[in-house]
Amino acid sequence: MSRLPRLVLEPIVRTALAEDLGLAGDVTASLLPASARLSARFVARKGGVVAGLDCAALACALVDPELSFTARVEDGAALAPGEALATVTGPARAVLTAERTALNFLTHLSGVATLTRAFVDAVAGTGARIAATRKTLPGLRAVQKAAVVAGGGWPHRYALADAVLVKDNHIAAAGGVGAALAHARAVAGHMAVVEVEVDTLAQLDEALAHGPDVVLLDNFSLADLATAVARAKGRAVLEASGGVSLASVRAIAETGVDVISVGALTHSAPALDIGLDAM
Amino acid sequence: MSRLPRLVLEPIVRTALAEDLGLAGDVTASLLPASARLSARFVARKGGVVAGLDCAALACALVDPELSFTARVEDGAALAPGEALATVTGPARAVLTAERTALNFLTHLSGVATLTRAFVDAVAGTGARIAATRKTLPGLRAVQKAAVVAGGGWPHRYALADAVLVKDNHIAAAGGVGAALAHARAVAGHMAVVEVEVDTLAQLDEALAHGPDVVLLDNFSLADLATAVARAKGRAVLEASGGVSLASVRAIAETGVDVISVGALTHSAPALDIGLDAM
Amino acid sequence: MSRLPRLVLEPIVRTALAEDLGLAGDVTASLLPASARLSARFVARKGGVVAGLDCAALACALVDPELSFTARVEDGAALAPGEALATVTGPARAVLTAERTALNFLTHLSGVATLTRAFVDAVAGTGARIAATRKTLPGLRAVQKAAVVAGGGWPHRYALADAVLVKDNHIAAAGGVGAALAHARAVAGHMAVVEVEVDTLAQLDEALAHGPDVVLLDNFSLADLATAVARAKGRAVLEASGGVSLASVRAIAETGVDVISVGALTHSAPALDIGLDAM
Amino acid sequence: MSRLPRLVLEPIVRTALAEDLGLAGDVTASLLPASARLSARFVARKGGVVAGLDCAALACALVDPELSFTARVEDGAALAPGEALATVTGPARAVLTAERTALNFLTHLSGVATLTRAFVDAVAGTGARIAATRKTLPGLRAVQKAAVVAGGGWPHRYALADAVLVKDNHIAAAGGVGAALAHARAVAGHMAVVEVEVDTLAQLDEALAHGPDVVLLDNFSLADLATAVARAKGRAVLEASGGVSLASVRAIAETGVDVISVGALTHSAPALDIGLDAM
Amino acid sequence: MSRLPRLVLEPIVRTALAEDLGLAGDVTASLLPASARLSARFVARKGGVVAGLDCAALACALVDPELSFTARVEDGAALAPGEALATVTGPARAVLTAERTALNFLTHLSGVATLTRAFVDAVAGTGARIAATRKTLPGLRAVQKAAVVAGGGWPHRYALADAVLVKDNHIAAAGGVGAALAHARAVAGHMAVVEVEVDTLAQLDEALAHGPDVVLLDNFSLADLATAVARAKGRAVLEASGGVSLASVRAIAETGVDVISVGALTHSAPALDIGLDAM
Amino acid sequence: MSRLPRLVLEPIVRTALAEDLGLAGDVTASLLPASARLSARFVARKGGVVAGLDCAALACALVDPELSFTARVEDGAALAPGEALATVTGPARAVLTAERTALNFLTHLSGVATLTRAFVDAVAGTGARIAATRKTLPGLRAVQKAAVVAGGGWPHRYALADAVLVKDNHIAAAGGVGAALAHARAVAGHMAVVEVEVDTLAQLDEALAHGPDVVLLDNFSLADLATAVARAKGRAVLEASGGVSLASVRAIAETGVDVISVGALTHSAPALDIGLDAM
Repeated sequence: MSRLPRLVLEPIVRTALAEDLGLAGDVTASLLPASARLSARFVARKGGVVAGLDCAALACALVDPELSFTARVEDGAALAPGEALATVTGPARAVLTAERTALNFLTHLSGVATLTRAFVDAVAGTGARIAATRKTLPGLRAVQKAAVVAGGGWPHRYALADAVLVKDNHIAAAGGVGAALAHARAVAGHMAVVEVEVDTLAQLDEALAHGPDVVLLDNFSLADLATAVARAKGRAVLEASGGVSLASVRAIAETGVDVISVGALTHSAPALDIGLDAM
Repeated sequence: MSRLPRLVLEPIVRTALAEDLGLAGDVTASLLPASARLSARFVARKGGVVAGLDCAALACALVDPELSFTARVEDGAALAPGEALATVTGPARAVLTAERTALNFLTHLSGVATLTRAFVDAVAGTGARIAATRKTLPGLRAVQKAAVVAGGGWPHRYALADAVLVKDNHIAAAGGVGAALAHARAVAGHMAVVEVEVDTLAQLDEALAHGPDVVLLDNFSLADLATAVARAKGRAVLEASGGVSLASVRAIAETGVDVISVGALTHSAPALDIGLDAM
Repeated sequence: MSRLPRLVLEPIVRTALAEDLGLAGDVTASLLPASARLSARFVARKGGVVAGLDCAALACALVDPELSFTARVEDGAALAPGEALATVTGPARAVLTAERTALNFLTHLSGVATLTRAFVDAVAGTGARIAATRKTLPGLRAVQKAAVVAGGGWPHRYALADAVLVKDNHIAAAGGVGAALAHARAVAGHMAVVEVEVDTLAQLDEALAHGPDVVLLDNFSLADLATAVARAKGRAVLEASGGVSLASVRAIAETGVDVISVGALTHSAPALDIGLDAM
Repeated sequence: MSRLPRLVLEPIVRTALAEDLGLAGDVTASLLPASARLSARFVARKGGVVAGLDCAALACALVDPELSFTARVEDGAALAPGEALATVTGPARAVLTAERTALNFLTHLSGVATLTRAFVDAVAGTGARIAATRKTLPGLRAVQKAAVVAGGGWPHRYALADAVLVKDNHIAAAGGVGAALAHARAVAGHMAVVEVEVDTLAQLDEALAHGPDVVLLDNFSLADLATAVARAKGRAVLEASGGVSLASVRAIAETGVDVISVGALTHSAPALDIGLDAM
Repeated sequence: MSRLPRLVLEPIVRTALAEDLGLAGDVTASLLPASARLSARFVARKGGVVAGLDCAALACALVDPELSFTARVEDGAALAPGEALATVTGPARAVLTAERTALNFLTHLSGVATLTRAFVDAVAGTGARIAATRKTLPGLRAVQKAAVVAGGGWPHRYALADAVLVKDNHIAAAGGVGAALAHARAVAGHMAVVEVEVDTLAQLDEALAHGPDVVLLDNFSLADLATAVARAKGRAVLEASGGVSLASVRAIAETGVDVISVGALTHSAPALDIGLDAM
Repeated sequence: MSRLPRLVLEPIVRTALAEDLGLAGDVTASLLPASARLSARFVARKGGVVAGLDCAALACALVDPELSFTARVEDGAALAPGEALATVTGPARAVLTAERTALNFLTHLSGVATLTRAFVDAVAGTGARIAATRKTLPGLRAVQKAAVVAGGGWPHRYALADAVLVKDNHIAAAGGVGAALAHARAVAGHMAVVEVEVDTLAQLDEALAHGPDVVLLDNFSLADLATAVARAKGRAVLEASGGVSLASVRAIAETGVDVISVGALTHSAPALDIGLDAM
């Protein structure tokens, strides 16, 4: 599993700590003696898939370099209810000060990974891949995308600058799919994937004639998805999107599309219940 | 409704835009002519409570000062399905570049406000107030708390520095509730609320003897909550917390507690479905 | 004594160092050989109360991690003239580069703590507490408030967001004290202290009828302060403010008010004379 | 009077506002109706010299661009007691939110300018110039130096990188004054002033033999200062420093030194009492 | 021509201005009266291709919003010697303060665009595209890549996260080209281009068997390039790189490769001589 | 050789790494096992003068503190073709991730140092010093100036705030050279060098009458430079500038001027070819 470099995580974790510390830090923690020490375990109250361990570790390190954070598993691991995923040991004040921020990362990102894994499992064996979207929570794109990858999904575009996604209005402005794709390639160059969004099978045919890398089939019926696969398979990567749920995703996958993108992975994943228990 | 100053919102919105723009900005938008203009409406696909309008407005303004964003409602307004909450008009490239970031704020924060309103409505008439917690998503505390307020809830502590929340380990370290509260007041002064968390009625009695501002009743049964209210009413604000759901919240409120705090408002609110439709 | 977390101090200390280093760092220090080492003591030229040790330590660490800074006392300690408060040892270039920034923190913050202690000592035995205000020097609020606490004072509000302080114009706008306090509570919730500022005994009576947490008695005469205490004691915390000096503070305290807030602690504290002497 | 560019002021003013706004902004201001407007005057309660007008103006503009701030005087102007220095008009909430930060800049920086002017006036007619030092308050060097200039003083070095100030240990390490000055020039080049600090007349003679731009006479007696002037006048700028007070500064100036540097200008200037009065 | 959003440019331009302004701004500019106004033209002393107009405009706007910057051409335009590319009008102090920073952007980025255009012209008619590399100057990648695009080149990867570029050691670690490509795709997903670097024709054959999007032919002879084109044309985009100069680029292009990447475009482009002349 | 403090380098290196890492870091590096280790040498492909070692070391440390970077030479050392200047050892993923950023610093800054050394060598024995200008690449002034110093040159002004450089329009506005210099000194004080730019010998005479520290002779012919030296030598430092090349610099130096400033050192230095070779 690839890990995000500390340089990417650091501003995100610093921001989270700064909003929790305010100007005076943890005034309650000062009730504990400075010399008190504490060991505690991060425990999953329910089963799920872990993500965000690096964020939690960094939150502890930034609160106090004397805190020792030890992960017992890696991002992407499946957790049984009650299973400990990490431990932290060190000055008690620091443990309590870091606790909430570390948990906020772990519970949210594990929630994302857990939901992703549920979608991935639902399409197991079909060959379809589950992908995230740009519907991420503000400021958390890097870590949410990493959590999707930890859950077994694909990250999709990270930023508007990464790839080209041509839609109706672009095509209209350019004077047709071909012109739009040519313009896109001329600007973006050979290292950017070019994707075209289509709403109908007729648009799909037109798009395929101009060699896009990926075609996004937006809100297609299952029947149309199957037809699209029959027409396009091998000529472009096909991505289905729109109103995908755990209930519907397997049927979509069975049409033979290559990728199914799901906004809910990052905009609506409920937190995984994780707590910190003193040892 | 109080509004967050631009200075508080700006770093949050800039971070969100920066992660979407990358180093090259919206390469697809360049397919549109620079002179093309577009007007579009932000429309609620489902009913809910709106929040995040200032964030969306700022996202548009930061992408291009020529974008004109006009809110049709205020944060906290109830939206019918299909209702337009705002419009944006200006250079088409800029509208498309700002679209996703503006929507990411609106859908998430309206999700928080909508869930809050559901809890507030569930306890209507009981006198209990719904409050958020520090279980917020990293980097989004200010705007999530504001969304809770828009939904009719109370923000609770913003930061560890704001108020004192004394728990078991603090009491043990201080040598008793009284000593802990005295220490807390000596450090934090007269402008910080002092809250004590208790797990049992016996602890409640001990805490009340030392005059805390607020007592947090953690995971009390309904019967114990009622008893706590009978013993403490008028001597301290009583806050119930732990495993509160939409199904259970009314019964909790009917015990007579003053405040019910709900972590799910900020850690597990699903997005409200909002889209941007060209006019 | 509670200590501010490094995350709170770091941007303040980095800014101070950056403005001293410019783009080329300490060009004079390069006259020393890179291998030269130096040990030096921070010595109080006059008696006072120390504060800012963590800032000075961090300034040294940020200039060069090889610098070893050892505090001989803790923030809040009383220093005799000539007493050493800390030592620093390491590469001579780094010691000289860090010297001025470390001293600027120590001399200013110890000045704040020393002045605070003078006020605290002046009211000894009366039960009154000395508090700071929001009249702090721009960018230094966190460390100045901590210096006040080191001197034995209370920090008062850290930020506008922390507590509610209702004044005349708010009352007029709300249509009365009661309405203003109710509005304040509705927005700020149960974790924010609500304070009302009054100019006359009549206003005090009106305010007390609506249960504020704290009443600020602004520029009251000694006689009126005493009357206020008689009327209000026990119903709200009473805070006196306005034109408080070392000459007048004891008489104010003897009226029985709970808190006396003093802007001069942070806006007019002269530096404590501290120097760095080679050992 | 030269003015600092907004780019230099902006991070300083933003930091000051951020620490006052916290995560929720001015919760009390929300008691006022959003439509309420207010005009108010910044008034000097006592006489003095104004500085910091640009900071106050920027604080208002950053809180709300609708605030109109109008200076009635310029930095450096002498204020009579009761004189208005500026007005602000706009949304009442914004005026109250910006008030404290604007005042904190004005009262502190006018305090610096007022103290500087007192020293400048004390040496009037002697030809000596009053200069600041690097003993500034952390984070405020740019604006404090500008306030010194507004008061009629000279800024001295802004940063360690600006100029070379050779002291004993540098001379010892270099093997003599001449070697130290040569080394300094070789590194710093022709655009950096080279100053040497001396403690005795003998050191002065040695220094003068090597052509420094400026000689700092540290803690010289009046008699020695006069002797130094006689020996050096015209060969180098002479700067006196060490324990300079308003009581002693004229006598020092009358020895004929060119510059007298005073740390107290920036480390111990009491605030000038300025308030904001509604009109 | 696509333009970078202000949000991308702003930190780059602010940094450049900050390093030029220091703590006191342009002390020389204060010799001019505050009311003096100036109009001036940016003039190319030699012929070339312009880039960086947005940076120059932003530098002027950030120094003083009253400065009016008017571009006479667009990025990518060919300039004759002596041709004016833009004008600036406004307060004379501000014009002089902004001058150097604006020129530093224009001269460097126009240098990059001019060199790029020379390579593009050299391969005219061959079908080969000229591309930049990640050999950019620290902190300037976004604007250098935009300058390459202005010159008619392709930007190539913006960041390590954008695309996969598999080299020898990756292949060895993965156990072969196929395994490496599969691993790459599994991590990066369907929206990232996968490129493989090869040093020999044998490696090219092996790579082609596994369907990379792009093959980088590193330091191939002209003969080998031609052979590579014959074998691979249509199966993958072929990119030639290594020691490409203006003297050699046409011959390389005539082998039929699709893309030629040139590090010198961004690491060794001499400045285009542009000056600011008062009008 | 003086070294820039880490605090000065850190924002520059962090910015460079951030633009290379994007939101996902080095996706290709994940093809290597996390446990793989690598040792590699930075090798000069051609001869030159090294600079930027601290930047390269910091880039490695910021990517992964486990990377061990060891410089074999110091900034300013002359490198033979093929000579190794540093080694890096540690996790293979981290080495590859840091490689390009470290090289971008080394190749550019060594290019600056190499070009500077060529100019310095060209004037050897004449007594003239080579100096940089403010024509630096945006964001890189600190490190480019340090590279010039490494190459044997002088840094000249770091910022507009450092020194005064009076030109025609300032003189006209002030009403003459004398008035301009007096004004400049009054604002900038005794620690700023005052330089005057002149275009003719007549202007030089006028300038010398008012005692500037430095006179900039702009675009003087060799004959006029020699005349200027004869008239001014000893009364002010003389700096020649304008169209200086390696071909012309020796003749300029032989006129006897003190300093020759060369914009090309920082705006047009080609990169020194340095690569990273696995050991």
